[in-house]
Parts: sequence; C-alpha cells; structure tokens
Amino acid sequence: MVLSQNAAPTADDLALAHRLADAAGEAIRPLFRGDWESERKADKSPVTEADRAAEAAIRAILEKERPEDGILGEEYGLTRENSGRRWVLDPIDGTISFMAGRPIFGTLIALMQDGWPVLGVIDQPVARERWAGMLGQGTTFNGKPVTTRTCPTLDGAVLATSSPHYFGREEADGYMKLAGAVGGNARQATIVYGGDCYNYGLLASGHLDIVCEAGMAIHDYAALVPVVEGAGGTMSDWQGNPLDADSDGTVLALGDPARLDDVLEAMGDPAVSHSHGH
Amino acid sequence: MVLSQNAAPTADDLALAHRLADAAGEAIRPLFRGDWESERKADKSPVTEADRAAEAAIRAILEKERPEDGILGEEYGLTRENSGRRWVLDPIDGTISFMAGRPIFGTLIALMQDGWPVLGVIDQPVARERWAGMLGQGTTFNGKPVTTRTCPTLDGAVLATSSPHYFGREEADGYMKLAGAVGGNARQATIVYGGDCYNYGLLASGHLDIVCEAGMAIHDYAALVPVVEGAGGTMSDWQGNPLDADSDGTVLALGDPARLDDVLEAMGDPAVSHSHGH
Repeated sequence: MVLSQNAAPTADDLALAHRLADAAGEAIRPLFRGDWESERKADKSPVTEADRAAEAAIRAILEKERPEDGILGEEYGLTRENSGRRWVLDPIDGTISFMAGRPIFGTLIALMQDGWPVLGVIDQPVARERWAGMLGQGTTFNGKPVTTRTCPTLDGAVLATSSPHYFGREEADGYMKLAGAVGGNARQATIVYGGDCYNYGLLASGHLDIVCEAGMAIHDYAALVPVVEGAGGTMSDWQGNPLDADSDGTVLALGDPARLDDVLEAMGDPAVSHSHGH
Repeated sequence: MVLSQNAAPTADDLALAHRLADAAGEAIRPLFRGDWESERKADKSPVTEADRAAEAAIRAILEKERPEDGILGEEYGLTRENSGRRWVLDPIDGTISFMAGRPIFGTLIALMQDGWPVLGVIDQPVARERWAGMLGQGTTFNGKPVTTRTCPTLDGAVLATSSPHYFGREEADGYMKLAGAVGGNARQATIVYGGDCYNYGLLASGHLDIVCEAGMAIHDYAALVPVVEGAGGTMSDWQGNPLDADSDGTVLALGDPARLDDVLEAMGDPAVSHSHGH
C-alpha cells in the first residue's frame, strides 16, 4: 500500500520499520567480528561493507513498499527530496564499535514528516535488542513498554556520551561543566563513554539519565527522538529547542524532562537557560 | 586439593577459575538491569550489591578449594597476605557500565604467583563471553583458541580506552598524542571509548589493536595480562615494563608486540622509548 504524503504514521509504518530493521540485522550479523572490507569515506570516517549492505537491504524494501516516500541514508544519500514523508537511515550507528566487535552499535530507522521525526527504531542486531517509538504511542523494548526514570538531582545522575572527540572546543567546555555537575571528572564519575545510539535506548528503558552529544547529523538523531519521547523523556539541542532537520547537531536527551533547565544551566550559558520558553 | 604455594598454575587452577567465573555470573545476571542497591565507597567510586554478591560467591568457593591461597578482591580486601599464590578479583570491572545496563563490563579473576599474573579470566556474564589465559598456554574465547592480529602501522590502528577521566593531566597529554597517531582526534578517529576489561578481550580476539589506560589497580589489570599475552599480544606500563603488583597504574596492551616502540615514541617521551631494552 502507498500512504498519502501527509498522513500521520500508522501501524503499517511501524510494522514496516520492524521489517526494515530485521533486514538490516540479517545483513549485519554474518559480518560481525568477521572478515569485512572497510575504507575511509570522503570525510575520512570509516565505513564497512556491513554499513552498505544493511542500507541497501533497507532501501530495497522501501522502494517496493513505499515508492512515493523519500529516503535519506548515511551511505547512499537522498532520494525523492520533495516528499513530505522521508525515511532517514543510519545502517550502522557506531561503525567503530561494530569494527571493534562491540555489540553496542545500532541500526537507526526513522520516519520524518515535514521535517519532524515521528517514528523511530534503534536496533542492536547482535544482542537482538530493539527499541521502537512512534508519535502518540508508548516506546517498546523488544515489544514490551518501557519508561524513563525520574532523576531528582543532577548530582549522581548517570551521563553518557560516545566520544570526547565529537565536541568542538566550546562544546567540550559545556560538556565538561555538565560532567562536573553529575559527580566530578574523575574515576568515580558516573559517566559512560562509547555506545552511540545504544545509550538512548538505555535511557528510554530507565537505565541512565542524560545523553549529551554534539556534531550529530540528522541520520544520527532522527530515530532517537520518538524512542526517547515515547518513553517519557525529552530531547533537544543544547539551547533546549526541539530537534528537526535543521538542528545544529548538538543533542541532549533526558530521561526526566524536569531536569532540562538544570542541565542547560550546568552547561554554563545563563542566557541559554533563560531563552527557552521562560 | 591444595597446591603447594610455589607450584606453577595447573589445569586444576584453570578449571577452578572457570568455576569462579560461573559463580560470579550467576550472582550478577539476575541483577543486570534490575533493582540493585548502590552506594559510594570511601574513594567515592560507585559499588552495587552485584559487585559484592559476585565477589562473595567467588570467595566462598576459594575458601573451600584453596584454603592456603591468598585472596585480594576489590570489594573485600586482602586475605592471607603472605601466600605466594594470590587470587586477584574484580567482581565487576566497569561498574558504571553494569549500572547503565551495558553488557560490556566483566568479572576479572587472576592468579598471581610471587607477584606476577600467571592465569586470567575475563568473563562477560550477560553475553556469556569468556576469555581465559594461563602462562604457557594459548588464550581461549568461549573455549576456542584466539590470537591477536598484526598491526603494520599506527595510522588506522583501532585504539580503545575506557574514559578520558582516568588520565591525570600529564597522562592525558601522552594519551592524546597516541590518539593523534592512530588517526586524529576527530569524529573519524578509530577510537572506541568505554568498555573496561572487555576491550582487552576484543584485543586478544584480534578485533582491535591497542588499549591505553592509566590509574589502574592490580585487580584491574592482573587478569588481563595472561589473556592478552597468551593470544600473542603484549602488555606493559607506559615505560614498556612488564606489569606486576608494584606497577604505577599505567597500562598498555598491544595486539602486535612489534608496535610497542612506535606506541611509546608516539606518546611523546623520547627518553622512555630509548630506556626499555635498547
């Protein structure tokens, strides 16, 4: 079936997203810890044949099932740019974790409607763990509803970020202030590094409290928003603005939306925390 | 049976180490992503009831099976300090990953003989992945032999470290030089963060090339040495010296021992690379 371009996401869309994730997982699993070819892309980021095989598998299904929808994928670019509905794909988010044999990368599948993410799937194909969220529905983990946890204070909150190298110089300053606020920049800090999209799934399931990142592209964050927000959390850029296709690449996810002002304040720009909705 | 204090490690010791890891896993698995109590220790590092339950389970078996051997555990301290044989335990290495629900922490079990690690197990109880190494024997992963991979040049090598917060100021400088040598300090760098002991297992299996850390205690690294070296890799401190109970807490692991001089040189102290064995 083909949906009209401006229809809200449906149960059929969600079922299709699950099928797409299944197909990506089938392409990725045989290559995990195996002999895959890799190279550097034009931007020097590494890519493997697993990234490409997974995106190709997803695109083949979409072309058949949703021939009028747009597709934006990390590896194969943009198709049908004028469609109001756009599937946004990152076949392997955390390619370096995949390369190193760590089962905490993920396949990201999002549906965006007029620039806003309305459906998202985070799939870890090796551990067979999948988070799925859709506008107006609760988020599920392997089919069961999940919710974020409350976080009464920043001190002691569990913070996650993928790599210190993803921050520009000023961003690193903001990040380090937040790191200090959750319990210090030392061995005892409650901060987990690495993990990419997997951390947002764990936040949706109530296992950690904050993810703070920068330098992200739309295919990195589009799928995360419905998952996190459908579980009761909130996502925004570092000014507290909702994330859309034109965001600046800074990303915050909070399991407890009541802590957003505290986080923005901790990150150190008083003007910032006052500018969003007060 | 009770071994004499100076016997080399035996097949019985290795079988016992597997039993100890089994017992720790049984204590940890039911608590993973569950409702565990946590608190801060005197040094402010977090500890959960899973850490304590796992170490208690291991100690109960050791007290029965090896009543003359010493035990040094992260949570319950030192027993029979004068024994030449000492079991060194970290029930959960990567407690913060355990707390965040990430299956890349591990139970570390080592046997040290007169201050030198001679047997080691790295066990990931959720994914049921186990590396085991013993002096004079090849390392195994889930019972099958594994070997490290060659690494012709540092450029493009996959580097791992658990957290930037584990480095002191001068150590961070050395680490960042190494990060630069493997491909730059940017989004495209082939560096994985987080992972603790799990990274050393992946190095032993040939999935990554270098682990560089600092601030480590004997219970953090004793089990890693037999695993890495039994797979063909090498471990040392940041001066290229073998690791023993008196090491300074800096740790390097290389899958390809031929790159050790390159790594020491990249880390920036020419005196260092000239002082070890030339």
